[in-house]
Amino acid sequence: MFTHSQEHVDPDLIRIEANIDDMNPEWIPYVMDKLFEKGANDAVFIPVIMKKGRPGFMFQILASKDRLNEMEDVLFAETTTLGLRYSPVICHRLSRKQTKVETRWGTIRVKTGSYRNRLVQVAPEYEDCARIARNHGVPLKDVYHEARREFDL
Amino acid sequence: MFTHSQEHVDPDLIRIEANIDDMNPEWIPYVMDKLFEKGANDAVFIPVIMKKGRPGFMFQILASKDRLNEMEDVLFAETTTLGLRYSPVICHRLSRKQTKVETRWGTIRVKTGSYRNRLVQVAPEYEDCARIARNHGVPLKDVYHEARREFDL
Amino acid sequence: MFTHSQEHVDPDLIRIEANIDDMNPEWIPYVMDKLFEKGANDAVFIPVIMKKGRPGFMFQILASKDRLNEMEDVLFAETTTLGLRYSPVICHRLSRKQTKVETRWGTIRVKTGSYRNRLVQVAPEYEDCARIARNHGVPLKDVYHEARREFDL
Amino acid sequence: MFTHSQEHVDPDLIRIEANIDDMNPEWIPYVMDKLFEKGANDAVFIPVIMKKGRPGFMFQILASKDRLNEMEDVLFAETTTLGLRYSPVICHRLSRKQTKVETRWGTIRVKTGSYRNRLVQVAPEYEDCARIARNHGVPLKDVYHEARREFDL
Amino acid sequence: MFTHSQEHVDPDLIRIEANIDDMNPEWIPYVMDKLFEKGANDAVFIPVIMKKGRPGFMFQILASKDRLNEMEDVLFAETTTLGLRYSPVICHRLSRKQTKVETRWGTIRVKTGSYRNRLVQVAPEYEDCARIARNHGVPLKDVYHEARREFDL
Amino acid sequence: MFTHSQEHVDPDLIRIEANIDDMNPEWIPYVMDKLFEKGANDAVFIPVIMKKGRPGFMFQILASKDRLNEMEDVLFAETTTLGLRYSPVICHRLSRKQTKVETRWGTIRVKTGSYRNRLVQVAPEYEDCARIARNHGVPLKDVYHEARREFDL
Repeated sequence: MFTHSQEHVDPDLIRIEANIDDMNPEWIPYVMDKLFEKGANDAVFIPVIMKKGRPGFMFQILASKDRLNEMEDVLFAETTTLGLRYSPVICHRLSRKQTKVETRWGTIRVKTGSYRNRLVQVAPEYEDCARIARNHGVPLKDVYHEARREFDL
Repeated sequence: MFTHSQEHVDPDLIRIEANIDDMNPEWIPYVMDKLFEKGANDAVFIPVIMKKGRPGFMFQILASKDRLNEMEDVLFAETTTLGLRYSPVICHRLSRKQTKVETRWGTIRVKTGSYRNRLVQVAPEYEDCARIARNHGVPLKDVYHEARREFDL
Repeated sequence: MFTHSQEHVDPDLIRIEANIDDMNPEWIPYVMDKLFEKGANDAVFIPVIMKKGRPGFMFQILASKDRLNEMEDVLFAETTTLGLRYSPVICHRLSRKQTKVETRWGTIRVKTGSYRNRLVQVAPEYEDCARIARNHGVPLKDVYHEARREFDL
Repeated sequence: MFTHSQEHVDPDLIRIEANIDDMNPEWIPYVMDKLFEKGANDAVFIPVIMKKGRPGFMFQILASKDRLNEMEDVLFAETTTLGLRYSPVICHRLSRKQTKVETRWGTIRVKTGSYRNRLVQVAPEYEDCARIARNHGVPLKDVYHEARREFDL
Repeated sequence: MFTHSQEHVDPDLIRIEANIDDMNPEWIPYVMDKLFEKGANDAVFIPVIMKKGRPGFMFQILASKDRLNEMEDVLFAETTTLGLRYSPVICHRLSRKQTKVETRWGTIRVKTGSYRNRLVQVAPEYEDCARIARNHGVPLKDVYHEARREFDL
Repeated sequence: MFTHSQEHVDPDLIRIEANIDDMNPEWIPYVMDKLFEKGANDAVFIPVIMKKGRPGFMFQILASKDRLNEMEDVLFAETTTLGLRYSPVICHRLSRKQTKVETRWGTIRVKTGSYRNRLVQVAPEYEDCARIARNHGVPLKDVYHEARREFDL
């Protein structure tokens, strides 16, 4: 999947939030997976402290406005929240391109990002690096460094 | 207090935030209580890292717009912040209803939430469960599970 | 309750820990209260990240060795853990004394701590300060500062 | 895999720790997986703040003493630490048993824990619940609640 | 530098955010310094948990709208993010004034804040207190307390 | 300062801990600096939640046993704690060596660590990289990558 997208500003995003203090944390990765399957652009949860000193989690999801319904479906079904709040946000996305590099252990995809036509980000793909590290019995960090070095040369 | 409220979207909310790095954390629960007394819908604080590597707390309060003054009164009086920032948010609240269940140790209120007329949330009241657990010398988690089971049956 | 205890080293303490990822966080303050009722010297919980990226909580309790059974009773009954680990620790406690100061709003107890006969800690009692702040409608921080100032003068 | 183990105290454990502030956090789940593959009993990482206000992570691993070498091999190879510290800990493990329950959507394994011959823990297996939730299109939390209810009845 | 600014509401601020999971945390204080040099009003980072259970950091910057370009220049150059999101916020800033107090160890600047013409904040300058504590070999907390006491008297 | 130290196990270390909920977080970096000046090997603080839902900080210091007095002097003078607890730990330190690399912008020191005579850690010095990034107006991350690449070649 070699993709290329232009740098752009997307004005039609929405940030969705809920604070939850009564949910088994074991379920959180499942909720996150569901949100991404249904089209979330990003999703994080943040340890927070709530009313009466209760520890809890803030979910914060970023999605395009037309995905609000899908996000709500997941959050109301899979978490214990009684409400969601949202507000519009604007997103500035870099031009992204996927390329690949050859390492001594095989090919690794590298995602790059450009800001005003200047290359600023270079990210070897985690999945490729982890697979190679595992299969060749080399440290993951060495695979990253070699992928990065090959890109630079 | 058996209440019932319809599912609705409330467009007149405001998120109020401050980052604070010079306040005795012992005072935080007091501030939280005050905010809820003055009508906050929700209030959390989040451990953050600020300028010069200083640990601090982000307060994040959700209130209806017409409570902004009361929230500011509390925050400027009770915290050490020199500024507050705010932005509008929209809140989608589930239909809420309070019912009760009978357990072997007594009655427990249960709050439920419905999303598009489908029951999605069932939450035994903490105060009831904690009182029963304490008075009957049973684990709190067993009280929750029995309350939940009785609701389901 | 005006107490005075000498500076000493207590060699008979134990640190008890558990990592928990499948427990409703709403129950945590209840567990903490129980631990203190049964004689814990200190108890904290720490947000951690566990196996498979699951968020969880590490409980860490400090108690005298002869309270290990009581602590285990609470933790196995009230949390969801399947195991506890412990290790001995030594505690150096300052000489503690309780005194009181007069403020314009009434008397406030102040706890002090001395290290090698030098006064190093001065802590107005939260409960007194909070009660006065509430009853007199003054900011809690002003009550603390006045209590501290009266102590110093 | 239906297992049963007796309640016991294991005196031959070791807690291994490192504080790390210069490692790509993307690598952490990989490190965790490796540690478990090599026999770690438990492994968590904790967000901490280090020298000069740098955010970092504390790794904390629990393993039997005879696994110290394997743990060190992973940690020195896969993280960026220049040192590890360790100390002995004792672990009290509950009697564990695996049973299963029938729900309307299929069989779910349930792990139980007993403390002094009293059943205190009941934990439906995450993997079974997640698979069923996914395959039957039902909320994960409903699957948990039904598994738990079936166990209790 | 003795300054005085009136209490006011600034409607032209912007909150800029990015979630980052693949950046060496050692670089974060450097990024923060750069943001403040380029005019950020405030900047914090928050430990969060991201996709696939990866720990990460949310950067949250507050700046005036006309600094958006400078903030983007820093964030795209110095972090590893491929996108930034932003949304407008309004800031209510207290009237601020700088005064000074004399302590037994020398002069300390004190920043004050007034809300509706009532003095609510009193903050001894960290840099002055730290310098004095260091030069005179006294505990920093004693310097703060004396500065505060002198202000009150 | 080009140093070389052999891989070794140091059995004479001590972990010192305190949980603090009533201290101005602004003072924490000062405390940390003092601890390192007085010989701490490592020092971190961890956001925790304490009694009554109060947020606080756990300080955790690692020092050689013969520095216990100096550490206590700092902690009792500069924090608000009324007690410290400690326990022995053993530290396994890699062989460390300092070397240097030439980049297009100048010389950068690189610290390396070897485990059983195998090079496992390579860390460009933050101070050198930050100075160069600042002086040459290049992104800090580019300086790190080039230093690392030069080391590998």
